[in-house]
Amino acid sequence: MTWDYSAKTVDLLKRLTAFFDEHIYPNEARYEAEMDAFRRGGDAWQQPAVVEELKVIARRQGLWNMFLPHEYRGVPGISNLDYAPLCEVMGRVAWSGEVFNCSAPDTGNMETLERYATPAQQDRWLQPLLDGRIRSAFLMTEPAVASSDATNIQCDIRRDGDHYVINGRKWFSSGAGSPHCAIYIVMGKTDVHAPRHAQQSMILVPAGTPGVEVERHLSVFGYDDAPHGHMEVSLTDVRVPVENILLGEGRGFEIAQGRLGPGRIHHCMRSIGAAERALEMMIDRLQTRVAFGRPLAEQSVWHERIAESRCMIDQARLLTLNAAHKMDTVGNKAAQAEIAMIKVVAPNVSCKVLDWAIQAHGAAGVSQDFWLARAYAHQRTVRIVDGPDEVHRRAIAKLELAKRTAARGL
Amino acid sequence: MTWDYSAKTVDLLKRLTAFFDEHIYPNEARYEAEMDAFRRGGDAWQQPAVVEELKVIARRQGLWNMFLPHEYRGVPGISNLDYAPLCEVMGRVAWSGEVFNCSAPDTGNMETLERYATPAQQDRWLQPLLDGRIRSAFLMTEPAVASSDATNIQCDIRRDGDHYVINGRKWFSSGAGSPHCAIYIVMGKTDVHAPRHAQQSMILVPAGTPGVEVERHLSVFGYDDAPHGHMEVSLTDVRVPVENILLGEGRGFEIAQGRLGPGRIHHCMRSIGAAERALEMMIDRLQTRVAFGRPLAEQSVWHERIAESRCMIDQARLLTLNAAHKMDTVGNKAAQAEIAMIKVVAPNVSCKVLDWAIQAHGAAGVSQDFWLARAYAHQRTVRIVDGPDEVHRRAIAKLELAKRTAARGL
Amino acid sequence: MTWDYSAKTVDLLKRLTAFFDEHIYPNEARYEAEMDAFRRGGDAWQQPAVVEELKVIARRQGLWNMFLPHEYRGVPGISNLDYAPLCEVMGRVAWSGEVFNCSAPDTGNMETLERYATPAQQDRWLQPLLDGRIRSAFLMTEPAVASSDATNIQCDIRRDGDHYVINGRKWFSSGAGSPHCAIYIVMGKTDVHAPRHAQQSMILVPAGTPGVEVERHLSVFGYDDAPHGHMEVSLTDVRVPVENILLGEGRGFEIAQGRLGPGRIHHCMRSIGAAERALEMMIDRLQTRVAFGRPLAEQSVWHERIAESRCMIDQARLLTLNAAHKMDTVGNKAAQAEIAMIKVVAPNVSCKVLDWAIQAHGAAGVSQDFWLARAYAHQRTVRIVDGPDEVHRRAIAKLELAKRTAARGL
Amino acid sequence: MTWDYSAKTVDLLKRLTAFFDEHIYPNEARYEAEMDAFRRGGDAWQQPAVVEELKVIARRQGLWNMFLPHEYRGVPGISNLDYAPLCEVMGRVAWSGEVFNCSAPDTGNMETLERYATPAQQDRWLQPLLDGRIRSAFLMTEPAVASSDATNIQCDIRRDGDHYVINGRKWFSSGAGSPHCAIYIVMGKTDVHAPRHAQQSMILVPAGTPGVEVERHLSVFGYDDAPHGHMEVSLTDVRVPVENILLGEGRGFEIAQGRLGPGRIHHCMRSIGAAERALEMMIDRLQTRVAFGRPLAEQSVWHERIAESRCMIDQARLLTLNAAHKMDTVGNKAAQAEIAMIKVVAPNVSCKVLDWAIQAHGAAGVSQDFWLARAYAHQRTVRIVDGPDEVHRRAIAKLELAKRTAARGL
Repeated sequence: MTWDYSAKTVDLLKRLTAFFDEHIYPNEARYEAEMDAFRRGGDAWQQPAVVEELKVIARRQGLWNMFLPHEYRGVPGISNLDYAPLCEVMGRVAWSGEVFNCSAPDTGNMETLERYATPAQQDRWLQPLLDGRIRSAFLMTEPAVASSDATNIQCDIRRDGDHYVINGRKWFSSGAGSPHCAIYIVMGKTDVHAPRHAQQSMILVPAGTPGVEVERHLSVFGYDDAPHGHMEVSLTDVRVPVENILLGEGRGFEIAQGRLGPGRIHHCMRSIGAAERALEMMIDRLQTRVAFGRPLAEQSVWHERIAESRCMIDQARLLTLNAAHKMDTVGNKAAQAEIAMIKVVAPNVSCKVLDWAIQAHGAAGVSQDFWLARAYAHQRTVRIVDGPDEVHRRAIAKLELAKRTAARGL
Repeated sequence: MTWDYSAKTVDLLKRLTAFFDEHIYPNEARYEAEMDAFRRGGDAWQQPAVVEELKVIARRQGLWNMFLPHEYRGVPGISNLDYAPLCEVMGRVAWSGEVFNCSAPDTGNMETLERYATPAQQDRWLQPLLDGRIRSAFLMTEPAVASSDATNIQCDIRRDGDHYVINGRKWFSSGAGSPHCAIYIVMGKTDVHAPRHAQQSMILVPAGTPGVEVERHLSVFGYDDAPHGHMEVSLTDVRVPVENILLGEGRGFEIAQGRLGPGRIHHCMRSIGAAERALEMMIDRLQTRVAFGRPLAEQSVWHERIAESRCMIDQARLLTLNAAHKMDTVGNKAAQAEIAMIKVVAPNVSCKVLDWAIQAHGAAGVSQDFWLARAYAHQRTVRIVDGPDEVHRRAIAKLELAKRTAARGL
Repeated sequence: MTWDYSAKTVDLLKRLTAFFDEHIYPNEARYEAEMDAFRRGGDAWQQPAVVEELKVIARRQGLWNMFLPHEYRGVPGISNLDYAPLCEVMGRVAWSGEVFNCSAPDTGNMETLERYATPAQQDRWLQPLLDGRIRSAFLMTEPAVASSDATNIQCDIRRDGDHYVINGRKWFSSGAGSPHCAIYIVMGKTDVHAPRHAQQSMILVPAGTPGVEVERHLSVFGYDDAPHGHMEVSLTDVRVPVENILLGEGRGFEIAQGRLGPGRIHHCMRSIGAAERALEMMIDRLQTRVAFGRPLAEQSVWHERIAESRCMIDQARLLTLNAAHKMDTVGNKAAQAEIAMIKVVAPNVSCKVLDWAIQAHGAAGVSQDFWLARAYAHQRTVRIVDGPDEVHRRAIAKLELAKRTAARGL
Repeated sequence: MTWDYSAKTVDLLKRLTAFFDEHIYPNEARYEAEMDAFRRGGDAWQQPAVVEELKVIARRQGLWNMFLPHEYRGVPGISNLDYAPLCEVMGRVAWSGEVFNCSAPDTGNMETLERYATPAQQDRWLQPLLDGRIRSAFLMTEPAVASSDATNIQCDIRRDGDHYVINGRKWFSSGAGSPHCAIYIVMGKTDVHAPRHAQQSMILVPAGTPGVEVERHLSVFGYDDAPHGHMEVSLTDVRVPVENILLGEGRGFEIAQGRLGPGRIHHCMRSIGAAERALEMMIDRLQTRVAFGRPLAEQSVWHERIAESRCMIDQARLLTLNAAHKMDTVGNKAAQAEIAMIKVVAPNVSCKVLDWAIQAHGAAGVSQDFWLARAYAHQRTVRIVDGPDEVHRRAIAKLELAKRTAARGL
């Protein structure tokens, strides 16, 4: 039993950290400035030049598509455990993932296409995604129903000759705001009379298909998260060829389950990276501000919070790495409790540490002058998306209850 | 010992609630639409017509300047205890206070002018404020120092013949974004060699005085809070006549202390109003959404949260009313522990209830479709402004420690 | 709306506090010594002489039977609101209530007899209780079922000619350990086929009736709480005359509801008294211990805890007084939400403050050298008896849910 | 990076678990009965026969002295990481450690003697300890000072010819109640004028040396924890030969530091074992009790708590194993942050889970009928002994602050 990162991860981590020091942190202000200029100009939904520039450098350095679980057409695969620490670094700057072609929801969509798409579908959509030429969105959540229960989904996918006709309304479709977003994976129902978990199908819908309308963005607290965005998309009599179905009718739930695990690891490690950065900022502020005659850093209430932050962060990281290892060794299904646990723990930890860091900054902490309020808004949202805390805790409890029932021989 | 609201409050409350039902809630969407139009047009710092229209109606109904602690030129006074329940109602819609000429920071500024200004200063500034013709700002907090310790303030006010010359940088100057904002009360230091609490002075600076620049707004989470705003204001060689000083040189700290109490009651009761509304929305959502076969409202984890919300809200209200009563009967100074306590308790309660309400709404809860995320951002900020939680808890603890020292005869 | 204690309460409070200073605190060590001597002698279930001595003094001073809600045979009545502050004082020393003939479960039992018993029953049992010549127990909770749901009660009461025959097993029968305990009020079922809330009856069973066996005491954490005790009592073919029924067959649930309210106020105010004492002890310890070069009282983590303690205690007290006032003015039924709320809030507050106080004392805090661990054990138990937190939170939530359903006109 | 237990641990764990199933759990009632009989007989400080019987079986099965870090006279050594999971099992039954000669404070004392004692000291004391023929105590904490700051220790050790003369008062000397306790390791000061961390020395004092008096036991929430016990011991002019000093004068602080790490791992893993057992009991109870028409196990508030328990326990275990691994690979000094973290986390987790388990049991949960209240009392104490939470959080914070100071190049 050893706990050190693999040589592969150590190497990638070193290079990635160096890239952040050289290219990401120094460009955070430029990124914000470019986006602010877009906003002032009345159209926030544009790609900032800095990202495109940095993509070229990252790809040249081999810091590209690092996430892919299995070797695919020359892109080497990586285990969840080896990739996880890289996500932690990328979690420190929200827009950094795209620089390395490692950003959600593209990673999940690429995994889905690598695993479930036909070669033709892969040629058409996976390759340009891997090349960073296009981006993608995943249209799952619907405004009218509690989407944490996937059986509630109402989007209608109906076969009509050689086409499927799609009608529905989706929202919080992350990434659909990007001008590069070219393809949507849409979850809907092809047969409401089938068994509960065989009603759903997933289908590929190219952006710009008639009947698709990106109606508006949903803000997260007051942030638009442009150009990525969380969009409301209506689908009205949208027709796509039958070849666009993924894996076949009624396989949607199966695909949804299959794509879940790795994305959770990524999300959670990014949450941990955000928490680490928040802790650093908290300490830096406390060490440089004086009130009532003493640096804030000498006050024991802050000692308690710093210590609690360190305890929470280290535990969340170990839990997430443990889940990654379990996924790598026994599979997503057997690791379902571990995956549910990190989904609850990691964003709650990052929210708590960010909240303290905001408090340490005073009013500045809620403003645009620091990264903290924006990061909080994002992490708070992570406690909801991909299933709210309550749904995951329920799942964990059910597994625990079943264990005891079995132990008592009932 | 009785706990019922006075007849005066019962009457005002009834009329105010009716006004909300008839004029405020039905206009919330219009207010947002007007502000969004301003933002899309590139200038958010404009007064929405709806507010001006409603001001006329409110004034006509006698729901105007209800806050004033003492009778002043025909405006009747009201006790803190009698006024507090009205603030709770106004806390349900952030912009509603202005409709009744009862919005911060104008209320605090008007109280200050009523209490400390010369008749000439009152003629010039207090009367138009009471008429709702102009608005005002209070320039206290500075970006460079921990302003929760008022002795850290650095803004320089220097006598030069018949003028004072002011140099400094202020931020989070709430209300300074309004196009109607005509007067600033500025806190600075006239004598850094005086005793610690006699260095500060307050001075009246008309908006538009040469050298005053409203440089930018500070966002709160992602919200600009236009047109009110939280502004960064630089003061460079700003000259105002010596008559503009309030009460005299070195009296700034005294004024700051004197104006604190009532504003805290207002803030806290508004926080409680926000919490009440959040609880209502939480329940309404839980009663109308189904997951895993049952309405969310039937799940006992939500029972716990609803019950905790009710317990917290009712306790916070009683604590605040108790503080108001103590201020009315024994004065702000003797009620300092009670005032510090509500400043900690009320916004923490509203943040907690709002956070649960957001969780009950799923992703919709963080978006612009509901009032919740915006309200959370505001309430989270209340935990910082006018002194962060830590400063108030420290003050409470010092009083408790002193009590025991005295009790043990040390 | 005023918040001051009535003149009657102020007077009683002053005299009661003086009695504590003169007679109770100075005798705490003696009480423990007497009880320890009993324990070492192998029989803890004896009445310590100090209590009997102090009863005489208290009665002489008119500090006797202060709890009675209504005037009864010359004993003056008192409102819940007026009596509550006295309970707070008595909460500071667990055994003090008996000195004033104001201790549970006798108070609740005496109220029950005053309200529901026949004159003959009152002559036989209420008068000696009011005189402090005997004590009593209330046999409700059963080991075999979740007794927080009163419909689960299984104890069987069957009519047999001029007698009732009782069979059942009760536990946590508080007070049944006392050598003075002469009468039990027993809750059981006379008709399991009646409607759910008409199955229960209450009946008077004299201690020593054949078939009654006090089998053992239940400890609370490691404390036996002798001589009061929490006893397990078996009832095997216990025969009592039909005249011993209270109010009539099927009225047990009604009586149970009727006796609940005042006892809750008493419990909760005692919890608040315990919390106050814990806070005092916490501060005293912090002010007299030095670690790492500074008194603990100067460390800001303790400032936070002291301030939080004060905020929690004052809120809990206001909430309880408000519930008392509501009971006095609109009745127990209309005050059911308020009563449920204090039952959750008060013991949770006292547990939290006691836990911090223990921590402030280091290892000494868990030992017999301080009152803290014993008080914690008791307060922790209050979170369970008379319904666990979860049951009361559920009741509060149901009322809130119903309010919104009504508000929305559903 | 792998996370599986070593083959050695897997084997020991399997055999240890089987031993518990066959010999420990079935004897828990007998242990309590034997101790109760001692208590009723007036002398609780006797060794129950069941422990002596089981020691023979355990030793025969090779489940004996498993804790020793290094090979010593034929006893094989074990790493912290390999031993830790065994402690988790032993944490499920408080008295079980002695059966395997793996109980505190003997393990820490044996490690100390193995590491710092002379061969003569080892022959005299270590060998009988390893044989389970005698037990030992560690006399560190003093009633008069905040002993969490070791420099506060006041016990005086003065050289007088060929002897040391010891005067002082110790308490919470765990294990000193045992009739088998034959040797004390005493911490005191040999030179109050030496540098702060060179004033202390440790010395061996045989039980029964004239001047040593075991005055009384300290209870822990009402429990005497006999026959082990937490004793108050006075040392009055106690004379021991100079050969009894450990390592030399002024080395006491060094020894104290050296002995800390492994004991912390043991304590924390036992806390985790206690938490696991509490979670099992919580679930079992919830699955077998019905209230308001449904099993408690179906109520979602309990789902939340079960899930939170699982998340907390798994994180605490990973954190502790990580600390153990770090101690094994880079040493106690480099692992000081990790050790401090687990000391805070593990007992807080077990207290929380135990508290919920008690709540799930209703009043039964605080009584002697279940293991829960006793376990809570013990775990609550672990949050204080070996340094209270606050001291460890302070240490963690200091390390974090230093890291940032270094990172910013200050």
